[in-house]
Amino acid sequence: MRIDIITVLPEMIEGFFNCSIMKRAKDKGLAEVHIHNLRDYTEDKHRRVDDYPYGGFAGMVMMVQPIESCINALKSEREYDEVIFVTPDGEQFDQPMANQLSLAKNIIILCGHFKGIDYRIREHLITKEVSVGDFVLTGGELPAAVMADAIIRIIPGVISDEQSALSDSFQDNLLAAPVYTRPADYKGWKVPDVLLSGHEAKIKEWELKMSLERTQRLRPDLLEDK
Amino acid sequence: MRIDIITVLPEMIEGFFNCSIMKRAKDKGLAEVHIHNLRDYTEDKHRRVDDYPYGGFAGMVMMVQPIESCINALKSEREYDEVIFVTPDGEQFDQPMANQLSLAKNIIILCGHFKGIDYRIREHLITKEVSVGDFVLTGGELPAAVMADAIIRIIPGVISDEQSALSDSFQDNLLAAPVYTRPADYKGWKVPDVLLSGHEAKIKEWELKMSLERTQRLRPDLLEDK
Repeated sequence: MRIDIITVLPEMIEGFFNCSIMKRAKDKGLAEVHIHNLRDYTEDKHRRVDDYPYGGFAGMVMMVQPIESCINALKSEREYDEVIFVTPDGEQFDQPMANQLSLAKNIIILCGHFKGIDYRIREHLITKEVSVGDFVLTGGELPAAVMADAIIRIIPGVISDEQSALSDSFQDNLLAAPVYTRPADYKGWKVPDVLLSGHEAKIKEWELKMSLERTQRLRPDLLEDK
Repeated sequence: MRIDIITVLPEMIEGFFNCSIMKRAKDKGLAEVHIHNLRDYTEDKHRRVDDYPYGGFAGMVMMVQPIESCINALKSEREYDEVIFVTPDGEQFDQPMANQLSLAKNIIILCGHFKGIDYRIREHLITKEVSVGDFVLTGGELPAAVMADAIIRIIPGVISDEQSALSDSFQDNLLAAPVYTRPADYKGWKVPDVLLSGHEAKIKEWELKMSLERTQRLRPDLLEDK
């Protein structure tokens, strides 16, 4: 799959996509992320992409023209499944949405910055508005990276051990059970005996019990019928 | 304020903190973010920080020793308000939590990676577990950056135009009104007349009406008594 990210600050997230699993996905040809500098698309001679808001409000607003030009340039090269704008008032991003978007072929993610983007962009060019949570950030760059990470890591083949992704929290509506590694006793802090028993059936039973217990205590909402 | 981030992949987020508002906060002496490479604290001769999980599960688990050593080294230098672990089963991060954490003097954020961290770390060393949302990521690095961004940008003086932060979504339990900038007519897409009227009272009235209308339509939960 291909993800195109449009931003005024490519350097905020470029490092991230050259790391770890994102780099592996790219090297394996499973996913590519292209980051576009919005300033390359402005017709303003000073390379400006923002202007004062109408109505005398505070902050700066991203202009329609550079964003429309960038989106149109991308669309002229390939079909996009979604043109996503990340905004705190969008639809809440969650694991089912990540799963669904991981099936897409091409998506665009537009990062807002400053006070916001001209609302006409949202009305005419955006197909899906997504929020990563009820908090306000400097820009959409981190949410775009969050979305790309959640989406790309579940593409088959990206994580070497598929089992690892399948036993993640949320994939079965249960929180994961606690995990432990060596040593079995660290300064008196001990690993539960059952995990040292080698008794596979008992370990599975313990894992499910802990998953359920933790979900009931911390996130009872996940166990309700939806 | 000071935020210490502990990670196995500093390069994932280092670029982010050298940018934009994060850099400005640092240059102004209002906030500093220190990123610590966990591998600098391991006693393992191969610099390993992870090991196989007990119980035969898939994935790798981060060991207690390097994390305890790093946290203890930091604690020996100053008092910390919180030692936070970012995990999808933690308490949901939101604007009130960001506001509250922005009042702290020093916080540590531990980023998990691989399958997870040895549960004994969570039982004995962590004071607060925080989730940025119901989705699974490659590691805690992006959520740590998200938290740091949301926290630092509301420290007074970080954003030049204070009014801009105060009129953000969520700060008054309302979504922000649409914003527009020039031109008033872009290929037939028009800015609402009221914003061009210069009539301040009518503009304020329109802004509140749009805020309420958008909140009622998109996020009625924000208007309920809490």
